[in-house]
Amino acid sequence: MSLVKVAVLTGGGDCPGLNAVIRAIVRRSEQRHLEVMGIRDGWEGLVEERHERLTRQRVSGILHLGGTILGTSRFNPFAIEDGPERVMRTLQRHNVGAVIAIGGDGTLSIAREMHALGVSIVGVPKTIDNDLGGTDYTFGFDTAVSIATEAIDRLHSTAEAHQRVIVVEVMGRHVGWIAAYAGLAGGADAILVPERPARIEEVIEHVERRRKEGRKFSIIVCAEGAMVDLGEGAKLISRGRDEWGHERLGGVAQSVAHAIEKRTGIETRVTVLGYVQRGGSPTASDRVLGTRYGVMAADLVASKRWGTMAALRGNEIVAVPLADATRSLKQLDPRIYDVASVFFG
Amino acid sequence: MSLVKVAVLTGGGDCPGLNAVIRAIVRRSEQRHLEVMGIRDGWEGLVEERHERLTRQRVSGILHLGGTILGTSRFNPFAIEDGPERVMRTLQRHNVGAVIAIGGDGTLSIAREMHALGVSIVGVPKTIDNDLGGTDYTFGFDTAVSIATEAIDRLHSTAEAHQRVIVVEVMGRHVGWIAAYAGLAGGADAILVPERPARIEEVIEHVERRRKEGRKFSIIVCAEGAMVDLGEGAKLISRGRDEWGHERLGGVAQSVAHAIEKRTGIETRVTVLGYVQRGGSPTASDRVLGTRYGVMAADLVASKRWGTMAALRGNEIVAVPLADATRSLKQLDPRIYDVASVFFG
Amino acid sequence: MSLVKVAVLTGGGDCPGLNAVIRAIVRRSEQRHLEVMGIRDGWEGLVEERHERLTRQRVSGILHLGGTILGTSRFNPFAIEDGPERVMRTLQRHNVGAVIAIGGDGTLSIAREMHALGVSIVGVPKTIDNDLGGTDYTFGFDTAVSIATEAIDRLHSTAEAHQRVIVVEVMGRHVGWIAAYAGLAGGADAILVPERPARIEEVIEHVERRRKEGRKFSIIVCAEGAMVDLGEGAKLISRGRDEWGHERLGGVAQSVAHAIEKRTGIETRVTVLGYVQRGGSPTASDRVLGTRYGVMAADLVASKRWGTMAALRGNEIVAVPLADATRSLKQLDPRIYDVASVFFG
Amino acid sequence: MSLVKVAVLTGGGDCPGLNAVIRAIVRRSEQRHLEVMGIRDGWEGLVEERHERLTRQRVSGILHLGGTILGTSRFNPFAIEDGPERVMRTLQRHNVGAVIAIGGDGTLSIAREMHALGVSIVGVPKTIDNDLGGTDYTFGFDTAVSIATEAIDRLHSTAEAHQRVIVVEVMGRHVGWIAAYAGLAGGADAILVPERPARIEEVIEHVERRRKEGRKFSIIVCAEGAMVDLGEGAKLISRGRDEWGHERLGGVAQSVAHAIEKRTGIETRVTVLGYVQRGGSPTASDRVLGTRYGVMAADLVASKRWGTMAALRGNEIVAVPLADATRSLKQLDPRIYDVASVFFG
Repeated sequence: MSLVKVAVLTGGGDCPGLNAVIRAIVRRSEQRHLEVMGIRDGWEGLVEERHERLTRQRVSGILHLGGTILGTSRFNPFAIEDGPERVMRTLQRHNVGAVIAIGGDGTLSIAREMHALGVSIVGVPKTIDNDLGGTDYTFGFDTAVSIATEAIDRLHSTAEAHQRVIVVEVMGRHVGWIAAYAGLAGGADAILVPERPARIEEVIEHVERRRKEGRKFSIIVCAEGAMVDLGEGAKLISRGRDEWGHERLGGVAQSVAHAIEKRTGIETRVTVLGYVQRGGSPTASDRVLGTRYGVMAADLVASKRWGTMAALRGNEIVAVPLADATRSLKQLDPRIYDVASVFFG
Repeated sequence: MSLVKVAVLTGGGDCPGLNAVIRAIVRRSEQRHLEVMGIRDGWEGLVEERHERLTRQRVSGILHLGGTILGTSRFNPFAIEDGPERVMRTLQRHNVGAVIAIGGDGTLSIAREMHALGVSIVGVPKTIDNDLGGTDYTFGFDTAVSIATEAIDRLHSTAEAHQRVIVVEVMGRHVGWIAAYAGLAGGADAILVPERPARIEEVIEHVERRRKEGRKFSIIVCAEGAMVDLGEGAKLISRGRDEWGHERLGGVAQSVAHAIEKRTGIETRVTVLGYVQRGGSPTASDRVLGTRYGVMAADLVASKRWGTMAALRGNEIVAVPLADATRSLKQLDPRIYDVASVFFG
Repeated sequence: MSLVKVAVLTGGGDCPGLNAVIRAIVRRSEQRHLEVMGIRDGWEGLVEERHERLTRQRVSGILHLGGTILGTSRFNPFAIEDGPERVMRTLQRHNVGAVIAIGGDGTLSIAREMHALGVSIVGVPKTIDNDLGGTDYTFGFDTAVSIATEAIDRLHSTAEAHQRVIVVEVMGRHVGWIAAYAGLAGGADAILVPERPARIEEVIEHVERRRKEGRKFSIIVCAEGAMVDLGEGAKLISRGRDEWGHERLGGVAQSVAHAIEKRTGIETRVTVLGYVQRGGSPTASDRVLGTRYGVMAADLVASKRWGTMAALRGNEIVAVPLADATRSLKQLDPRIYDVASVFFG
Repeated sequence: MSLVKVAVLTGGGDCPGLNAVIRAIVRRSEQRHLEVMGIRDGWEGLVEERHERLTRQRVSGILHLGGTILGTSRFNPFAIEDGPERVMRTLQRHNVGAVIAIGGDGTLSIAREMHALGVSIVGVPKTIDNDLGGTDYTFGFDTAVSIATEAIDRLHSTAEAHQRVIVVEVMGRHVGWIAAYAGLAGGADAILVPERPARIEEVIEHVERRRKEGRKFSIIVCAEGAMVDLGEGAKLISRGRDEWGHERLGGVAQSVAHAIEKRTGIETRVTVLGYVQRGGSPTASDRVLGTRYGVMAADLVASKRWGTMAALRGNEIVAVPLADATRSLKQLDPRIYDVASVFFG
């Protein structure tokens, strides 16, 4: 009896915990008599036939490493001519019986479409931002929150020593999960997120109230995609673009900071955390979650539950349809924001 | 209308996140028009009348600190004459309308009995070991797992450089939650816990299998209360006592290490993590959880839900009867152990 | 016999280790029978008479905290009318026999001038950037390098997963110490500093050479004040200003990144570390150095060595004239840059 | 012209920063037209002919890793018959023109003897404990101090919450460098080292003085080889051995703790940090130092300065005779201990 061969790929933005998933898939597959082929650079590797055998030795010592040993890309086979056909040809040529796609919105949408074309596929959800449906949390989010929180802790001491306001921009173009969690954990005096458009006046009130109590320093946590009404002329701000057409670094945060400084007279500074939030060693919690997902993904292949993905519900790892992940953006739980707002100002 | 006065105490072993709970209680109480009195050193402070007013200023800047600003003790008022009466006298004398007890098995049992005597009381569950019923997780556990995992990461490099076996003992006298999570996150080659008595032969098999594949080093994670059958004469080992009658430091781990070294001839060393696991700054996740509990506890007081405690169920904070926490020890989820065992040997 | 009263102030930008210095001054002063008065917000507090008694209790538990319990400012008494006179009046009115000024270029220059006016003063050098003369290193620098290195470690995994170039901007407007040390420790593929004007072509060569060897990712570390000749039209870039007249966030790094992307076609991203580098808990090494400085400063007061400051020479703490600190900018040791350049490309 | 081939080995206990040295040797050797051969497991690999080619690719990505990619052992070729001859035969057979030995007392003594036998050899000093002569500091020490300090920070919060004394044992069998630095950085209330035999009464006095000021908790830092006179019967304690003949875990610390608890009645606990101090990622400072040593070692080979080793003097990397390292144990600088003692009690 020949082994079933499983192709594994990671797509989209990198995320701490990807290597934990890959390692777990390989180790569990060994137990379930599956052979694992690692695809390079997401879906691109399936079109371009870039891959390597993944053995136990190959995945030894990678559990704690950030990034992905397979590389990643945002390549979409449906965006090129013959893309899906080329993917299927690769799978046939290498005698691949199943695909495990680890990724976010984009990757899992492609997986769903591939499944509709008849490919035997299962998924593992991945999102730093925690905005995927179908699952309570995914790996990477806890790491991003931890890194952002540690930065906020550091900024607190400098804000206090200088009696300044610091506006810190964290990841989250469409949702405020990281901002809310890191803001809660870091003791933010205001948190700006996409889900709750805020007026700059409210933020200024928090800053002023603190000043009246003798604390001139404040920490404002701001998601990249925060919606803030700056008043004067009343438009919500967006990130803006620089002279080369790139999105402006810290666009929202800088607009907010400028408005606060102008109105309160308190020195206000901006820090943009950027890519450090998605790099480096995953937290213990993300390694455990990634590992549980990886074991489940191999089990889903072994039991041929095509078109499903591993998901976390409460404390359990369950299988849900791939479509659940991508149906709609999972917005910030309003109860979390409400808890955070107890501490504003 | 005079404010209701709430007494807050922390009892039992310290736990990262206690200050997050206290701060949240104070901030939420302010919104709910409750006044907060901090009791020193757990129940002892209610008997001895040691307390202080807790204001917003007093709890400013404590969110990220380990320990508890209130101090703690293992004092039990039911163990001394007139204890419960003295507690109630203190409450009356200071016009205290409600008590929030933050603690584990011991503290919450006392709370339950006090409630039976008519005291208006609510609880917040606290356990490093994650062995309390009624709640999925509590604050402090994630921090302990993180610290243990970081230590295991460090031990890996020294074990590999020297081709040694290292047995690392983590907290867990009665349950294996920390051992299983930290072992999973740290990539342990075997995990020994109280819930799954193991024979030393199995551990040795894992070590030998790795040696055959060219890896002479292994990491064995061992809970303090792990049950291991050492074979020869067949008794399960316990911690033992030293010449002064104290429990032996690393008793179980040392017995395991000695057996491995003797049988395999591979140099084997012991590390006992001890108190570092429960000290210091809580993880972001524990700060969020502690804060959510604290807000809920103040809400339970405001809505007079006496005899209940804040608990985590899935992603929600709910109220459960105090008795749920202490009914029975919450043992390690066998599914977690099964995932971990995929990676043994 | 009445105690001599010593006034302690911290001026300029905050710096991890300031609290270690303050604590050491207080503890050593107690042994030398000196009384310590803490001045709020640098020289401003001496003009405005804002101060507090510093006792052993007051400085207990601050050793590991970032910032400064005394607050800081960039206030210069020589810049206002009667400034120096008001300082001296405050000193007399409160019977202050000596001043310990902890600060950088600005603070120590003022100290030197005050000394020239007859004030009994000693100094402690402080600079994140390591650009003060008279001393080999000061506290804060090691912490800044550590934080930057940890960030570079994280960026490495994301750069590798995505096969990108990441340009990371670290502190250093006038000198490249942090860039060189963090670049060395983080394994940077090129380091841009003020002391060694570079042509963008060299950087691009390093990136290209790596690509030829199969590594499309590179990490470029760039000091805020790096001198880079972008070619086309041949001007050295500076930070630039945004629409509100503030210095542009990551101005140099963005220009460099844009040029690399345009010329190599490799996706290039920017991260600006900013204020996180100067906040938070000091490293063990900075705590030791700050403590040694503080003990020395109290000893300098006790032995009336006015006009001197504590300094590190090799492994020894010595006294040097205040003027040594401010005579000229201490530029990056070229041997360090040369070692770093072994690893370029 | 054929390249000169250099053999590199790491011997003795592992130490964070070893990989930084190896990487730097390889990169600098490439520039100096030297070829590098990595020897496995210290001197043993030269006898057993276990080695591998070290290329730029092989040492890519190892800068931040703990341990040593070459493995290490305590093997001494002079302790076996024909050992030195076999070493020399290996060198000849593989056409090795020079050896770089990275190690401590043992490894460098062997290097010195090999040099006396005519082998072209240079050294790099390595010691966690900082007890080697000829150099101010070596890599690994800063990392060990950092890890110990972080642990002491954590223990502080638990000691304070429970009003306990905690005795923490750190590395240092013969010298007190780690104890003194970590004790200073961690704010220890007493530090016990081999170089300054102490009476238990002094320690108890510190604990009692703190209690009188209202602080029942204390942190005592204790080197493994601390000399403490326990009074009653007046013997200095040593580590002792357990029932299997191994040195007792935390022997000195436990004796000290028992004596304190017995005499003061304050609950006293022990933590033994053990192997975590020498494992894991090196600090930025140790990576810089290791890298500077590695570059220097390759330069010493290129300039044929046999019988010397790289050493740190002040801020410079210099060459000193190999014999300088091993002439005598470098004891703790008494000025450091004196600074630390300002904070006792």
